Amino acid sequence: MSASQPDLPEPAHPELDSMLSRKFGKEVANYFSGSPLNRVSFLRTDHPFLSLALKHPSTSFLLFKNMEPLVKSSTQLTYVSYKDVQPIIGEDPYAKSEEDLIKEYNSATYIPQLVFLGLDERKKESFQYKNHYQGAPFFALDITPKGPITSAAETLISNMESKGCSFLPGRMHLSLPATEAAIYAASRHLLDWNARNPFCATCGHPTLSVNAGFKRTCPPADLAPSLSSPDAPPARPPCATRTGISNLSFPRTDPTVIMAVVSSCGTKLLLGRQKRWPPLWYSTLAGFLEPAESVEEAVRREVWEESGIHLGRVVVHSTQPWPYPANLMIGAIGQAIPGGEEIHLGHDAELEDARWFGVEEIREALRVGTSGLGDAPGPEYKEGGLRLPPQTAIANQLMAAVIGGFLGAEPKI
Amino acid sequence: MSASQPDLPEPAHPELDSMLSRKFGKEVANYFSGSPLNRVSFLRTDHPFLSLALKHPSTSFLLFKNMEPLVKSSTQLTYVSYKDVQPIIGEDPYAKSEEDLIKEYNSATYIPQLVFLGLDERKKESFQYKNHYQGAPFFALDITPKGPITSAAETLISNMESKGCSFLPGRMHLSLPATEAAIYAASRHLLDWNARNPFCATCGHPTLSVNAGFKRTCPPADLAPSLSSPDAPPARPPCATRTGISNLSFPRTDPTVIMAVVSSCGTKLLLGRQKRWPPLWYSTLAGFLEPAESVEEAVRREVWEESGIHLGRVVVHSTQPWPYPANLMIGAIGQAIPGGEEIHLGHDAELEDARWFGVEEIREALRVGTSGLGDAPGPEYKEGGLRLPPQTAIANQLMAAVIGGFLGAEPKI
Repeated sequence: MSASQPDLPEPAHPELDSMLSRKFGKEVANYFSGSPLNRVSFLRTDHPFLSLALKHPSTSFLLFKNMEPLVKSSTQLTYVSYKDVQPIIGEDPYAKSEEDLIKEYNSATYIPQLVFLGLDERKKESFQYKNHYQGAPFFALDITPKGPITSAAETLISNMESKGCSFLPGRMHLSLPATEAAIYAASRHLLDWNARNPFCATCGHPTLSVNAGFKRTCPPADLAPSLSSPDAPPARPPCATRTGISNLSFPRTDPTVIMAVVSSCGTKLLLGRQKRWPPLWYSTLAGFLEPAESVEEAVRREVWEESGIHLGRVVVHSTQPWPYPANLMIGAIGQAIPGGEEIHLGHDAELEDARWFGVEEIREALRVGTSGLGDAPGPEYKEGGLRLPPQTAIANQLMAAVIGGFLGAEPKI
Repeated sequence: MSASQPDLPEPAHPELDSMLSRKFGKEVANYFSGSPLNRVSFLRTDHPFLSLALKHPSTSFLLFKNMEPLVKSSTQLTYVSYKDVQPIIGEDPYAKSEEDLIKEYNSATYIPQLVFLGLDERKKESFQYKNHYQGAPFFALDITPKGPITSAAETLISNMESKGCSFLPGRMHLSLPATEAAIYAASRHLLDWNARNPFCATCGHPTLSVNAGFKRTCPPADLAPSLSSPDAPPARPPCATRTGISNLSFPRTDPTVIMAVVSSCGTKLLLGRQKRWPPLWYSTLAGFLEPAESVEEAVRREVWEESGIHLGRVVVHSTQPWPYPANLMIGAIGQAIPGGEEIHLGHDAELEDARWFGVEEIREALRVGTSGLGDAPGPEYKEGGLRLPPQTAIANQLMAAVIGGFLGAEPKI
């Protein structure tokens, strides 16, 4: 993140005085969540709907080149219209049904990846479908110059660059407002998943993007000429992903756990650091959830593996989508058991250091010492002080929750 | 599940009087969690460790044929020893380093899938490594008769069957005790992931199992003779999964959301049913989390798509690993906003019915009307009454939490 701190998303219905809110407090909405779009996921197979949405004058296309978004600046995405992208995607990639597209499948044809993101319901007047669904349509499109789209893509890229737009490299430089960050996150996650999975992991053959970018299917035949047997019929061997529903056909999201660890007495927080981070920069521990673990078990395992500390009770605090490339961060708070607080870094060699910090030191660092990894801390930061991740990181929200009130019933914290 | 209700796992440290326990209550440990094994994940690349663990007399191997586990009965897994599996796996598949195995990679060689699950620390005396890690080792092994292992696998299968053991088909028939269920869940999830992903989704070439079954790597060369170019060198084209870390190399777990939906007044719960379920059988709504959604957003989207109901505040309750094939169920409780409670099944056609049920009707059904999908309800069940999933389903735990005290501060529920 750049030094200018982007805003966090508003929780849904913050004003709502529900039982759950009274009992558990306001929902914490983390950066990259808070999308203004209704995904209307059940319309992704409705190709007449997709055609109408694609060509509507209110429709916005977010462009990517090598997974970098087109922006006006680091704080503002830019969008183009159907007439801008038409030379790249053709008249209407949704003109035919998926059934027909699968029948005509030819793996030698390059199709630029297009993803339908949803309808922006803040603009209900702009587009309507079947009297039920309304809002301005949003799509993401990969225009990396490649194969048959090279020339059309380069022309559009030049046009946009001449208007002062650019593709922003590197996630560290984005400081988008919350709603834009959520649109960017969905776009990046879906385009990356499609780009990373051109082949079927079960049979090794090329796959076809369907469901408006939310599914990849393994067609039973391929019209592309085969090098090894040019006269062979187009049929391919059977594949298990074609019988029943296979998770491999759908986008992958990797659950990760990230946790604020409180000492058994409730006066200290455990933080760790990786070698590549700036000096004095610490954060909460984190890691991937493994097969057949509950979130609570994954939190206890990761904390023990990385720091040697034994946790008792674990509570989920909030969650954050993280599109680099495909994570769901599940934020938790855990408390060490009495006698289980000795730090041992020798199990797994991931951390350079892990240490217990007093509540007051963390409170002060949250006030003056936060920044993105590549940025300087604020003006009040004093040399030698603890440095922490910015507000847009769920790690920061977890620490703030512990310090500021998640454990509010307890006088010590 | 069979009619005999298996036990649920004990929460970790149930006796612990931590701040988190006092504030949030006891942790809910769902079925398939609660593993007694320490995964010591950082030792999966330590091949001398794996060799020692493999051959130790205290080591247990859980066998699978076509994803079905070897059991003594529906309530008891059975294990075999190193000498039983040695004819199938060979003297020591961990004798060489991963580096060497990758160099010698030949995709034409069939290697039965072996997974190291962890150390059972309840038996600390049995096996020790480096004075730090101790417990009886557990492995899972796929002995489906296939290729070169056919004969040895068939011999072992006959031996076990003559002792009264069998491979239990179908997940509905398992009623394992909690700790056994957790071992089975990890085994099934890992074996299934390996079996489903023999090819690299990025380049389409066959991959090799490494990290004791927890990683698949795309070797840069393959000694197998190629049909299309028998004299070609064994090098394969570059693949993005070989540079840096790729999530595709690691097991996939799909986050799903499952939620108890409370009415805005707090007196009713929303349940739905699928057409294929027995009459009068209802459950909580559920669905897959999508890319770039927080858990809270996924809950609200799924509930609106399936039932038309608008939710405000959403709170995570507990989580459950679900190895069919690879889910993490994230259990939540959400409350409808005033005016957002009208049921509309027309968005997505997934449910046959969805309906608001009063708290008393659900309380009674939790007492007398629960069972597995294929089983009969208990003896006190009265014809025509509501039927619900068993205690081992997180859906049941969510309903019980709402009825019995998760909203305990509120007199109405």
